[in-house]
Amino acid sequence: MLTQAGITVLPVVAILPLPSALQADPVAQLLVTLAVILGAAKLGGDLAERIGQPAVLGELLVGVILGNLGLVGVPWARGVLADPTVDALARLGAVLLLFEVGLESTVGDVLKVGARSFVVAVLGVVTPWVLGWGVGAWLLTAHTTYAHIFLGATLTATSVGITARVMQDLERSHTPEARIILGAAVIDDVLGLVILAGITSVISAANLGTDLSYGQLVLVLAKALVFLFGALVLGRMISPRLFGWTKRLRGRGLLLTTALVFCFLLAYLASVVGLAPIVGAYAAGLVLEKVHYENFTNGGERPLEELVRPIGTLLVPVFFVVMGMRVDLEAFTHPEVLGLAALLTVAAILGKQACALAGFGAGLDPLVIGIGMIPRGEVGLIFANLGLGLTLHGERIVDQRLYSAVVIMVVMSTLVTPPALKWAFARRRGVGRLRGVS
Amino acid sequence: MLTQAGITVLPVVAILPLPSALQADPVAQLLVTLAVILGAAKLGGDLAERIGQPAVLGELLVGVILGNLGLVGVPWARGVLADPTVDALARLGAVLLLFEVGLESTVGDVLKVGARSFVVAVLGVVTPWVLGWGVGAWLLTAHTTYAHIFLGATLTATSVGITARVMQDLERSHTPEARIILGAAVIDDVLGLVILAGITSVISAANLGTDLSYGQLVLVLAKALVFLFGALVLGRMISPRLFGWTKRLRGRGLLLTTALVFCFLLAYLASVVGLAPIVGAYAAGLVLEKVHYENFTNGGERPLEELVRPIGTLLVPVFFVVMGMRVDLEAFTHPEVLGLAALLTVAAILGKQACALAGFGAGLDPLVIGIGMIPRGEVGLIFANLGLGLTLHGERIVDQRLYSAVVIMVVMSTLVTPPALKWAFARRRGVGRLRGVS
Repeated sequence: MLTQAGITVLPVVAILPLPSALQADPVAQLLVTLAVILGAAKLGGDLAERIGQPAVLGELLVGVILGNLGLVGVPWARGVLADPTVDALARLGAVLLLFEVGLESTVGDVLKVGARSFVVAVLGVVTPWVLGWGVGAWLLTAHTTYAHIFLGATLTATSVGITARVMQDLERSHTPEARIILGAAVIDDVLGLVILAGITSVISAANLGTDLSYGQLVLVLAKALVFLFGALVLGRMISPRLFGWTKRLRGRGLLLTTALVFCFLLAYLASVVGLAPIVGAYAAGLVLEKVHYENFTNGGERPLEELVRPIGTLLVPVFFVVMGMRVDLEAFTHPEVLGLAALLTVAAILGKQACALAGFGAGLDPLVIGIGMIPRGEVGLIFANLGLGLTLHGERIVDQRLYSAVVIMVVMSTLVTPPALKWAFARRRGVGRLRGVS
Repeated sequence: MLTQAGITVLPVVAILPLPSALQADPVAQLLVTLAVILGAAKLGGDLAERIGQPAVLGELLVGVILGNLGLVGVPWARGVLADPTVDALARLGAVLLLFEVGLESTVGDVLKVGARSFVVAVLGVVTPWVLGWGVGAWLLTAHTTYAHIFLGATLTATSVGITARVMQDLERSHTPEARIILGAAVIDDVLGLVILAGITSVISAANLGTDLSYGQLVLVLAKALVFLFGALVLGRMISPRLFGWTKRLRGRGLLLTTALVFCFLLAYLASVVGLAPIVGAYAAGLVLEKVHYENFTNGGERPLEELVRPIGTLLVPVFFVVMGMRVDLEAFTHPEVLGLAALLTVAAILGKQACALAGFGAGLDPLVIGIGMIPRGEVGLIFANLGLGLTLHGERIVDQRLYSAVVIMVVMSTLVTPPALKWAFARRRGVGRLRGVS
């Protein structure tokens, strides 16, 4: 007998059951959705590049348009955003993007800039936190100090998908700045975990009238560090053996399959210790080095970057278009939210400029680092989501108005980064040219 | 504001909400599932090739094992088979496989063998139908003649995924036999539509005591033919212009994206007229020819086959492993079903050998054609599913016992094809060598 699903009786209409019954292939709807998303992504990317912007900005903006067609009576996006498969493909797209970007560097490249990444990450967490806390204390006098602290915390986490993609669009993924930013984003993810664990522990303790449990905080941090150590150090030891072993298997596509399995498992393990799956995917990309799979490429296989790229071509635009589709323009029409949102956005952007301090005096471009750290993306939303669910003495820490402001801050930080980063790189090229002339 | 989903409050556990909250990334589960499926597929493929079988047989069998781990207390497959995303990825895999195979031929190649494909398709529909009808009349004396006719009809449809994949494993996708079989499978799909519409109309008419509506039958046929004509003729005219136009866009991955959008739209349109999406995907592959996108390949892009292959490497094994997982070995333990199933399987296999008649006297291998047409796959199950839902004077046309027998027939036809086809090709090489010597 086949699946439960196989036994399900299809609905049979009396006179002409055929079309409705055979149309029942559930992939048909997904296919047309993907066709629309991919087509729109390429049109948006083309328009963005024509006005000198990275393609990803165009993908985000066509997403915003597709997602808000409901305002003109075409609620196409509602079904698409409710489809768990589209969501899963978008998330797979993010995993593959970070894997691709990771493949362009090695663990050694990242360790070289590790200390600097750490400084960037810490500055990029502390400054926006303090600024956000200040904005809360100034504007939200009716809220508790806990709410102000929590609001500041939503500004701390860097979401690196946008920056990674802009770097790729501009062919800058291999620069030291890119590595510093991506390394800092990984460290940020660990710091974010600890901050979130800390805040929720403090609030829980205040609720219950008990003491703060430092043991739990240490455990959260330890798990994340063990994962990163294991992935980067053990992973690098295992990788050449893994390819040596799979080379002995018979079949097609073994190099790509081995790499994908490695990436998917590390991304999964990252999520097990509480980190974002894309952190694991980036680590997997760093670990897999060309010399590890020379046995395949010497036999005529193309390098992994080339093999992974077509999968990214299918899935990565789904991630950015869907991200754009999730922007509900109605949130921008509430004046009482907009003021708070504007100040939060300023705090978020200025706060991350502290990261630039770590870029001075090493031949690096501080501005690129400061701007590259701006995007908040999903991590800020996870924070805000958690805040919606946290209560202190029966009152919510984050209310709907605060939540909407955080969402707008995330959207603005995402949309502002591609043109700003493009400008920062162009400016540097200009400086370089002048230097070359003088 | 972001999506409805974005606003959903994540569950917050009192003391340590972190790991459970951030693990909430729903892609994590999918990633580990894909890693298991891909890893198992490659191991199974390796073992199959070591004993001289096509890799796909190994993928199917590891699927059967994974799917029946529940018998030894590991019900891993239950969650996987219930996950709509895994199902969607498997179906996407089938679409990409047929697209890949279509890319290896042109519309002209298929039209050259069109008449022969038509004869193969008709023989391959009529003979199994008559045989299956006979088996029903002989064994199922308690059932109505309608049930016997319906049972025969479940044996008619060819499911071409397995054959396409075996041809690919053996590097025989470009042979005339492969084109005849794939062409016949497309025609089969059209004939299947008409048969199904016919039977259900007859039964509906018998139920209501009214006359059979021939108009509906003609409509079903007309829609399918209009689609195929439109896809192959208009599609071929549009394709070069499409690539000419997208070449002017700016951005990365435009060749692959254009091809994927074209494939997804044709697969969707096929499902709209009641055909299987894979028929549309195969048609799309046929239509897109190298000369249409020379503007891209001259600019250094790799040909489409190479760009599509990595996506297939990710998704196609998901299709075959999941297909194997759907085989419930418990169905094989019911003796009262097994006798009927065995005879049905024999009728299914022998019936399609009539197709071999169309292969004589043209330098073709009749045996390869006869065996290549054996697999029934999902189409037979859709038939049986419909039968479960059809009633005549309040009684089901197909009961659970009959359904299980059809399922076993489908499974056996699927598992028997890879080794049989491999044998048929090897035998021919043997014959060729003898001829070469004499």
